[in-house]
Amino acid sequence: MTQPYFKKIVIFGAGLIGGSFALALRRANAVGEVVGFGRSAETLKQAQQLGIIHRVGVDIATEVGDADLVLLATPVGQMPAIMAQIAPHLGVHTLVTDGGSTKCDVVAVAREILGEKIMQFVPGHPIAGGEKSGAAAARADLYQGKKVVLTPLPENSAESAARVRLAWELCGASISVLTPPQHDEVFAAVSHLPHLLSFVLVHDLAQRDNRDLLLSFAASGFRDFTRIAASSPEMWRDICLANREALLREVKQYADELHTVYQALEKNDAAKLEAIFRLASEVRNNWTKNK
Amino acid sequence: MTQPYFKKIVIFGAGLIGGSFALALRRANAVGEVVGFGRSAETLKQAQQLGIIHRVGVDIATEVGDADLVLLATPVGQMPAIMAQIAPHLGVHTLVTDGGSTKCDVVAVAREILGEKIMQFVPGHPIAGGEKSGAAAARADLYQGKKVVLTPLPENSAESAARVRLAWELCGASISVLTPPQHDEVFAAVSHLPHLLSFVLVHDLAQRDNRDLLLSFAASGFRDFTRIAASSPEMWRDICLANREALLREVKQYADELHTVYQALEKNDAAKLEAIFRLASEVRNNWTKNK
Repeated sequence: MTQPYFKKIVIFGAGLIGGSFALALRRANAVGEVVGFGRSAETLKQAQQLGIIHRVGVDIATEVGDADLVLLATPVGQMPAIMAQIAPHLGVHTLVTDGGSTKCDVVAVAREILGEKIMQFVPGHPIAGGEKSGAAAARADLYQGKKVVLTPLPENSAESAARVRLAWELCGASISVLTPPQHDEVFAAVSHLPHLLSFVLVHDLAQRDNRDLLLSFAASGFRDFTRIAASSPEMWRDICLANREALLREVKQYADELHTVYQALEKNDAAKLEAIFRLASEVRNNWTKNK
Repeated sequence: MTQPYFKKIVIFGAGLIGGSFALALRRANAVGEVVGFGRSAETLKQAQQLGIIHRVGVDIATEVGDADLVLLATPVGQMPAIMAQIAPHLGVHTLVTDGGSTKCDVVAVAREILGEKIMQFVPGHPIAGGEKSGAAAARADLYQGKKVVLTPLPENSAESAARVRLAWELCGASISVLTPPQHDEVFAAVSHLPHLLSFVLVHDLAQRDNRDLLLSFAASGFRDFTRIAASSPEMWRDICLANREALLREVKQYADELHTVYQALEKNDAAKLEAIFRLASEVRNNWTKNK
């Protein structure tokens, strides 16, 4: 019998991200044992029943000492505490990766807490998810054909980066490599800004006296535009604050663009409005075709 | 054999909106004959082949004289010219309705062009559609369970308004009644503003040197938020201009809200950000549940 690529993996957070990672690796026969930690005993129990983890971890110190790979799949806000708990006990061959939506802040915290063991931390961000969360939402094919961004650090050995890359590839993902600042700038533009804009629209309508009337006429355009405004308030508060600098630049630039459109509308500038809408429409249609 | 509710209907524009109206009424055995006019001879021919219209109209004067109902299902910009063509020839029992996305401008034009025959015009707006357009996209069930807003005029008789209402109800729609200004304010908020915001986001990204890199990392949140930015530039230019006053108020208010969020982010005000996101998330989730 051949050895699996990873003898033992420890996941912190057995929800959608961590659970799907475990399921995918188990389905690929790429892992011998998955041990789960998390804040909710109930979620962990459910994750075990669903075949996500083999067992619920009890003692972090002993579990991370002989693990091949540790995945931090909790909200970013919980990562510092977990890093502090695992840092003293990480085996010399244990690699750590994460699934956080922001990277500069996670890397800064990791450098501070892991010290020299920062070389064992290869940061990552799987570009997959959905409105649903929790262990019950985890699926072995969540990452199939999806992108995972890795932001390896100068301290990582090529071999360490390759091992983390392999784990995600075994989940079916295709890997992109960016630096942490590149990552955060890209996602400020294509993810964090749209989320913020969507939240702001619904909040704007939600405060009005006639909100029920307005919402009764909202249709499919509104539904899709605001789907992401149904996301977790805590998670998005943390993402926005974690990526504050890049997001402030994005909001500023967007507000300037909006002002330009406002002025065109004020002046009845049909040609300008059409030019703006046309470029947007063309780029958006091409994006779908290239997907 | 019983008579159909409508002996003859004339539609201007046999695309998604007009074509689906005709298909629905034909499926309900509610119309004897559907005659189609439009700018594109090819679309009309296709509409005939698809069973949307019985025949392509040749002479507007003779066709609208004995029609029970005329539907204007063209872009709003084409309606003035059509109204001018039909006005002298409308039969005394011929009712006119439309499917325009804005109502104050259509009503103003109709008052000017139709003169005393304004009493025969019952304005409407079916809240259905999609990215696809054209005769091939028309479906008999497009309006099933959807809202149609009617904005009857003081000049309309109760019977005229009821006849137009009946036509849409036979298509499976549920009818809401608003005044034209109410209609335009509601749709500025829940439809026109989100479209404009979505266009602006894609335009913002489209102008950047690294746009291809950015778009390569855009995922499902971006996809849904920007789906409406793939809409027709000409149509949305016209809608924005037609509903300019209400839309300017909406953009102004949105920009103020965005500035508030910008400031909260600048000040690292976690509580405020979370409160804004939480209200939005709750309202959006409740909206889905009530759908």
